[in-house]
Amino acid sequence: MSLLQGLDYAAVFIFGLTGALAASRAQLDIVGFVFLACLTAVGGGTLRDVILNREAVFWVADPGMILSACVAAILVFFTAHFLESRLRTLEWLDALALGVAVPAGVGVALGMGQDWPIVLIMGVATGTFGGLMRDVVCNEVPLILKKGELYATAAFAGALAAVITTFVTDSALLTLLTCGVTTFALRAGSLLFGWCLPVYKSRPPRA
Amino acid sequence: MSLLQGLDYAAVFIFGLTGALAASRAQLDIVGFVFLACLTAVGGGTLRDVILNREAVFWVADPGMILSACVAAILVFFTAHFLESRLRTLEWLDALALGVAVPAGVGVALGMGQDWPIVLIMGVATGTFGGLMRDVVCNEVPLILKKGELYATAAFAGALAAVITTFVTDSALLTLLTCGVTTFALRAGSLLFGWCLPVYKSRPPRA
Amino acid sequence: MSLLQGLDYAAVFIFGLTGALAASRAQLDIVGFVFLACLTAVGGGTLRDVILNREAVFWVADPGMILSACVAAILVFFTAHFLESRLRTLEWLDALALGVAVPAGVGVALGMGQDWPIVLIMGVATGTFGGLMRDVVCNEVPLILKKGELYATAAFAGALAAVITTFVTDSALLTLLTCGVTTFALRAGSLLFGWCLPVYKSRPPRA
Repeated sequence: MSLLQGLDYAAVFIFGLTGALAASRAQLDIVGFVFLACLTAVGGGTLRDVILNREAVFWVADPGMILSACVAAILVFFTAHFLESRLRTLEWLDALALGVAVPAGVGVALGMGQDWPIVLIMGVATGTFGGLMRDVVCNEVPLILKKGELYATAAFAGALAAVITTFVTDSALLTLLTCGVTTFALRAGSLLFGWCLPVYKSRPPRA
Repeated sequence: MSLLQGLDYAAVFIFGLTGALAASRAQLDIVGFVFLACLTAVGGGTLRDVILNREAVFWVADPGMILSACVAAILVFFTAHFLESRLRTLEWLDALALGVAVPAGVGVALGMGQDWPIVLIMGVATGTFGGLMRDVVCNEVPLILKKGELYATAAFAGALAAVITTFVTDSALLTLLTCGVTTFALRAGSLLFGWCLPVYKSRPPRA
Repeated sequence: MSLLQGLDYAAVFIFGLTGALAASRAQLDIVGFVFLACLTAVGGGTLRDVILNREAVFWVADPGMILSACVAAILVFFTAHFLESRLRTLEWLDALALGVAVPAGVGVALGMGQDWPIVLIMGVATGTFGGLMRDVVCNEVPLILKKGELYATAAFAGALAAVITTFVTDSALLTLLTCGVTTFALRAGSLLFGWCLPVYKSRPPRA
């Protein structure tokens, strides 16, 4: 298995877990768990592949990806009640998935020889759209819109770190590692210590 | 007209009716009816064609499809007030559309020689995404997330039945018929008799 | 720069402003502004390019587009508090963006030699989907679903005017100008004078 495939598998599995946790919060049946897990797991990567016009969407080329999301769904269906807080677990797994999916997007775009702005966007899009779809379908406030948290910023910083690293080294492993670590570190710091950027504050009240 | 085209036409028309009914519940004007009808009608099939990288999206290749959704929208605009319950009618038409769209997705994937997991997913995605987009845009709880109902399950079972049938017979007609009947029967049984799978129940309260 | 590219740039920039205004209403940080601005700015055109199977999505072919959306986001982040009503500004900029994006969609479809129903749909879809995504992600009632306003209708009338103009003249400039002016005039009339089409009214109460 190549490094990129490995990243895709990991992102699919972990995002699958978060989709299934969202399904548990909506009290769905097992097929509902599988549906939401798959949507969350492959949403970002599918968008990436469709926009970049790749020959085949990654999970059509390798249906094992889907199986991996299904396993995640079933796992959660039978074990989620052992968790103390499913929301908290969801947030942390989502942070982990972000830290894997951003490099997965960056890696594919780099591999296709795209310009750096496209590499940046593909990193952010691959990382964030699966979770965004999950939250929109479940009618929850998308994690990416939560006030005073780093989310899009973490993805953006990770993708930027990758782009900068490519100017320094040719090692794909190093580039993707820098990307993933930066993304996860910022997101984790936000969850743990409340790291954030200044948010927009209107002087007159919202209108 | 080929069998597959016929299925696409039927799915488009019936999903168009459900989109227009949703528009009536949101009290839109006639163009709003047409917009929501088209979105619902072609949403699932468009996703299928884009992901499978077909030469042309089905309604770009045959704009008559769009006309069919427009007719559905206009029909509903002028007759919906004769209905006793528009919500109930929407649910039943949606069940019918599901029973036609799942085989439409399965048929296209089979015709392209895709592996069975992809056939399965295309059946479910083609069947469910038009309605999902309709519900998300209208800010209603998606039918697919309703607690204690078979929806994704009906689509999944229908697609699975089709896959199994392909191992037994070469007849496309028989395969797609099995698929449609299974899907509709399960969804109808859920609406009529409350059939459902056990849903996830958390022991500790939702957190 | 060609006429079509110019239209795409203008649509991206103005839709970017509306996305950033939506971000200001959700009190996001600067990266959140950029994210929502880009989503709104390129959403409609991306859908157009993916459905029409163009060689490359417009902003992948020309990353300057993305830069333009980013500039819009930053501009709004530092100036939005000078506005008297951000909601009202958002609505008017959205009307302007609609008047530019509908011709952008129509122009691309015409340039590919598509049939007139596809030209019509591409005009409406390119014009409306960016704003629709913005509103769905922000969990606001989509502008397109607002009761008693012309929105989809304005886009539809503009695209229709363009189609009719193509039967009369070969001038692309005239066609796109007619399209844009019709769209904006109807939408502006709706905002200023309350122009609307009769909406659906149920005789029995909503059910």
